[in-house]
Formats: sequence, structure tokens, C-alpha cells
Amino acid sequence: MPSPIISFTSDFGHSDWFVGVVHGVIHGLCPSARVVDLTHDIPPGHVERAAFVLEASARDFPAGAIHLAVVDPGVGTGRRALAVGARGQWFVGPDNGLLEWALCDPAAETHAVTESRYFRQPVSRTFHARDVFAPVAAHLARGEAITKFGPRIADPVRLARTVPRRADGLLVGRVMFVDHFGNALTNITDQDLSDTFPTVPESRLEVLVAGRSILGLARAYGDAKVGTLLGILGSSGRIEVAQVGGDAAARLGLGEGDEVAVGVIAG
Amino acid sequence: MPSPIISFTSDFGHSDWFVGVVHGVIHGLCPSARVVDLTHDIPPGHVERAAFVLEASARDFPAGAIHLAVVDPGVGTGRRALAVGARGQWFVGPDNGLLEWALCDPAAETHAVTESRYFRQPVSRTFHARDVFAPVAAHLARGEAITKFGPRIADPVRLARTVPRRADGLLVGRVMFVDHFGNALTNITDQDLSDTFPTVPESRLEVLVAGRSILGLARAYGDAKVGTLLGILGSSGRIEVAQVGGDAAARLGLGEGDEVAVGVIAG
Amino acid sequence: MPSPIISFTSDFGHSDWFVGVVHGVIHGLCPSARVVDLTHDIPPGHVERAAFVLEASARDFPAGAIHLAVVDPGVGTGRRALAVGARGQWFVGPDNGLLEWALCDPAAETHAVTESRYFRQPVSRTFHARDVFAPVAAHLARGEAITKFGPRIADPVRLARTVPRRADGLLVGRVMFVDHFGNALTNITDQDLSDTFPTVPESRLEVLVAGRSILGLARAYGDAKVGTLLGILGSSGRIEVAQVGGDAAARLGLGEGDEVAVGVIAG
Repeated sequence: MPSPIISFTSDFGHSDWFVGVVHGVIHGLCPSARVVDLTHDIPPGHVERAAFVLEASARDFPAGAIHLAVVDPGVGTGRRALAVGARGQWFVGPDNGLLEWALCDPAAETHAVTESRYFRQPVSRTFHARDVFAPVAAHLARGEAITKFGPRIADPVRLARTVPRRADGLLVGRVMFVDHFGNALTNITDQDLSDTFPTVPESRLEVLVAGRSILGLARAYGDAKVGTLLGILGSSGRIEVAQVGGDAAARLGLGEGDEVAVGVIAG
Repeated sequence: MPSPIISFTSDFGHSDWFVGVVHGVIHGLCPSARVVDLTHDIPPGHVERAAFVLEASARDFPAGAIHLAVVDPGVGTGRRALAVGARGQWFVGPDNGLLEWALCDPAAETHAVTESRYFRQPVSRTFHARDVFAPVAAHLARGEAITKFGPRIADPVRLARTVPRRADGLLVGRVMFVDHFGNALTNITDQDLSDTFPTVPESRLEVLVAGRSILGLARAYGDAKVGTLLGILGSSGRIEVAQVGGDAAARLGLGEGDEVAVGVIAG
Repeated sequence: MPSPIISFTSDFGHSDWFVGVVHGVIHGLCPSARVVDLTHDIPPGHVERAAFVLEASARDFPAGAIHLAVVDPGVGTGRRALAVGARGQWFVGPDNGLLEWALCDPAAETHAVTESRYFRQPVSRTFHARDVFAPVAAHLARGEAITKFGPRIADPVRLARTVPRRADGLLVGRVMFVDHFGNALTNITDQDLSDTFPTVPESRLEVLVAGRSILGLARAYGDAKVGTLLGILGSSGRIEVAQVGGDAAARLGLGEGDEVAVGVIAG
């Protein structure tokens, strides 16, 4: 067996032992696995933020990668646990919309996790990452078929996806995530751009914040001098508002949900 | 040789290179080891906090796991270094009470680490995690017998354990740790509950903070609506004070050392 | 193939997915690699700080270790990418001075990374850690010869090194880094001390901050009582200003660039 990769995303933070214990449980069941922490700094219970992290990063992992994600305010209630095969990868987490990136694949194979023989016993009321999700991810890594964990279901909880809209010749999207550098990542993807402006070269497009143009789509951060605001097609394939050598979101007061638009440069 | 698991706990933080260097030393000596960070956010020198982290999490690791823990205000003085076999696992750290969870096992086998041939040379005055403790943990992971590191001793430094007391029909314990979510973990264990209230069903027990009942023992966070305070038997087998979807410790002003009690619901 | 160690240093922080994605790319290309995070808390764009981290820690890794370092404000511009063999190890990162610790080795073998067949395609404009540097580090770990990545060059960007100067019988250096504990690490190395004061025993030397002696060179933190300020030869082989059980930099108002001196105790 090769070394399966298990990415791990949560709202557990780093000041407790929760993340480490999950690593320990996985290594105990599947010593060859590589557990890769995506982030554990999701604000407690913020399912949408974690869903975005998965959407932005899952494609960067190889085929066959397993994504373990636990932001789980409903732990201990009747909410289901899911294992999903989608996009050539696997996803394990609670049934609360967190796995939307997998679920929105029309070919997704979604299973409720019900077979308790895979769980760590006794199953606690409050730490299913340790007792349910990590063991299932580890067994997937060992090659267990996804069909073994429970019945296929057709009604997983879905997250409302905010897609950009067209208005007055503009493509209007929203800020989905502000990263560590202060770049504001939007829901406008490269696909959206080519669908909306199929005949317009990138050099003729501009990004607008609060109705104000903040520059044409630049080639890279380093193309303009420090302090310059710019729109850029970022590394996860979506429009970002950035500032060369600075924090664009702080400067512009941009936060999650704020509108950002792309349009054609006049003239 | 399988892949031994080495957990690692310290007060090193993440802004320096200290944690990474310890990983590097271990991998250099034992390439097959899996080093799992429990937490490095212990406040500098706070031995009791780190001892609690070990106590709360060690049982979640498989038999044979090695726990490397370094909170070491006495580094460079005459304080001893320890390697302890207890509870089917191994523990390595300074002799300052940090390994209390291992030492309070009556069957603990406690060795002073004195055999400098296992150390990284030259041994620095201030970084024994790198030069003494990590090499010993790595050699344990390679299968070296614990007896090789130095003589067995009978007088390790012990930590005073605060055990719950009975008073006026209540079991009175203390907050030991406030976790990332604001849950206040106490020193009242499930064993304490069944010893004190052997004939009382859990549904008839309540948790009291500052003399005020904050609810019966709930089944899970998700059983009550957001904002509800509740007592709960947490994932490490001890009573926690929690708030559904919120930060109980902040709301109640609970911190380490504060009293929390369990009693029988009246009527 | 054994398990090659790849250290990883950046200014990416932990709240996004950037660090995890780099781990995933490396494991996808070289499953046997051990990726060790040094720190990702370098302030954004602070190349000098990251260069110091490498200088302070690289020697603690085994021969053959690969150091991946990405603090890259010029990403997407014409700045070159480097792969360097030096001091028995390998270094991969942008050509902006970050790899100074490798480059200042007279025997350094420095290559511009130009062979795009090693890159992750398509190469983004803003995330060369994922698309260029991580793949090159992974291919080095797989045993690829450094000569394969591009031509040897003689003119990498160098960082100005601040070396201690002698003045009035003192050796005057500067604070390079304040660590998590508040220890102020200087650029005065043990070699500098023996070059400058070859006949003076360590017990006759003292450290001065703002012209005031703060103690002779102590044997270890634990030798003096809590609160004592002291100068100490730290674990990375350089003079540190420390406080027993406390934060010396905060107490003395010491920050990066401030002068610290070593002299002979009078009398």
C-alpha cells in the first residue's frame, strides 16, 4: 500500500490536544497515512468557512486523497455522518453542508456512516472527530470500500452556493474569504470570467470594489509597486482583491459577503 | 519495525524553530516515527497545564505510544531527566511533575536518564528538548529498552493531585482546563461519579457552578438550544461545563481552580 | 530510499490552507518525505527574519536535509528561483536573500531553477510555493541531481550580514530575533567570543545592554533565581539576553536591531 494522504480541517484550534489525538487515532489505524493539517483556525462552528477552505484547496491534492473535515456544532445530536466519493477523492465529515464541494459534484457518491464497527468505542457524545470521523478516514486510507460504512443516501444537507450574477454589464460576486495576507478571495472563478466575457482579453478587464475600479487584472503581485491595489486571478482560480506588499482587506474595509465586481475597461 | 507514534507537548509556541528542530532530530534518529504535536501553546513554564494535557489525552493513543513532553523551567540546573513506562505507554520529560499522569500509575517504571551516549552532543545549556529528551524518545521508538537510559529511581518529583471532595451531599471539584471552545474541564471523572452516586441515574444528577444549578447532565451539546448552559460528561471522561454554541467559561467567568460541583436534583 | 527530511519555513500563517497544500504536493511527489514545519509565523514579506530562522536552525538537521523556505514578496515577477547545495544540505527558495545561510558558504553550489518540467502545471502567478518550490524540493528528496533544475549561477541576491564590531574593548552586536520566551538572540556567536577574547574564561565575560552590565555569562537559566537577567550562550551558539522565568525583551524593551555588547568584567 502506498502512503495515503489525509487532509484535516477543523475548528479545534491548537491550544488543546484535540488535533493531536486525531492524528494519533489515524496513525494507530493506518500507520502509512500522511496526515496534513489544512487549518484548525476555523472560527468555532463556522461551517461555511470550512466548506470554502475545502473548495479552494481540495483540487491541489492528488487523486485518491482523503479529506477529513470536522466543524460540527451538532455533534451528539441526530445529525448524520457522511463519507463521500467525488472528484476522484474522498471526503469525511458531518452532514451539515461542510462537504458541499464534494456534494455539488453531480457524480458524488454519498454514504451515511452508520456501521459502528468502524468507530472507536465507546463513542463519546462530544468528540466524533476522534471516535467516528478519524476512524472512518483511516479505514478509507487502508483501502476499505466506501460502501462498507453505511447506505448510500440522496438527501445530504446542502450549503447554499452564492454564484456571481450579471448586472449592468458587470459580473458581481462576493468576498468568500480573507486570507492571512489580507487578500479578499471572491466567488468569481476563471470559468465565470470566460463564460461572461468570452471575447474580452484579460488585459481589458477590471475589478471594482464599491463601484470603484481598483485596477485591471494584473499579472502578479510584483508587477506593480508596493501599495498598489489590484485585482488578480489567484492561485485557487478565483478573483482576488490584493495590495502589493500590504493588506487589501484592511485598507478597503472588505470582509466576507461584500460585493466585488468585474467589468470591461471603458474606452 | 512498525511506525511508532511520538506525541510532543511543550511551551515552545510556533513562532520560532524549536518545535521543528525537535521533529528533525527525531526523524534523523528514527525515520519511521510519526511525531504528533499535541500542543505547544502551554503558557511558558506552566507545568501543571501540560501535565493535565497529558492526563486528558494519553489514553487516546495506542499502546506503545511515546509521549515527549517538555515544559522545563529548570533546564540546565541539576533537575533530572526521566523516562517512564506506565499504562502501556512511554513518557519522556523533565523531573518536575510534568509526567504525573505516568507517575501516579502504581506500576510505573521510572528511570533517571543519565546515559549521555544517547544525547545529542554537545548538550546545550538551554535546549534539552533537542539534545536530551528528543534523542531518548527516538531511541525508545527504535526499540531501545528503557533500562538502558539510566537507573531506576523511586523518588521522582510529584505533582499534587487535586481530587474532588464530598460536602453536603455534593461532589465538589475544580476547573482544571478551559479549552478552545470555552468548555471548562473539571477534575470530576466518570469514576468519581459512579463512586459517589452509585445508585443515582445520570438523568438525576446536576452540575452546580457558584452554588447554582446549570442543568442536569445533558446527552450532548446539540440536545439543547443555542445559548443553553449545561454540564456534560466530556470526551476525556470528566465533567465539563459547556454552553451550546458558545463560550461557557467566558459567560460564567470560570477559570482554572474555580469550584464546580455535582449533586442530585432535588425532588 | 530512506525518509528524506524537508523543513518548511514561510510567512503563510496557519489560518489558510497554504501550508497544508504544500505538504500535500510534496507527499504526492515523494511519499517517503517527512515534512517538518519550522515556522510559518514569519511576518509577511520579512525575508531577513526567515533567513535568520534558517541560519539558527539548519545546523540542527541531519546531513542531506532539504530546507524549503518561501517568503516571497516578488512572486510572479522576474525574480529567480534557487536550489542551493551547501553545508551538506539542500536549500530551495526565491532569489531574494532568504537563503543567505546557504549562500554564505564559500562552497555553495547555487542553481537557478528554470526547468519547468519539474513544476506543477499550470504555474500560478501568486503561489510558487505550491507550483515551483515544493515540487523542486520533492524532486530533490527523490534523489534528482541539483544540476537538473537549471544552470549554475554566480550572482544570487545576497543579504547584508551584520557582524559584530569591536569598540572600546567591547564586542558590539545586535539583536537578530526575539523568541517566544522573550529571549533576545544576537549576532554574537561563540566563534566571535573566542576570536575576540581568546584568553578570557567565560566566567570573566559579561553582557551589556544599553551600556549596563546585566550579568556574567551564566551556565543556565536555572542557575539564578526567578527574575534575574542574564546573558547566556544559547542553544544556537549565539549570545542571548534572557530572564529567568520571564520575558527579558519585554522587560528591557529590546527589539530587533538593538545593540548588545560583550566585555570583560572589570577588576
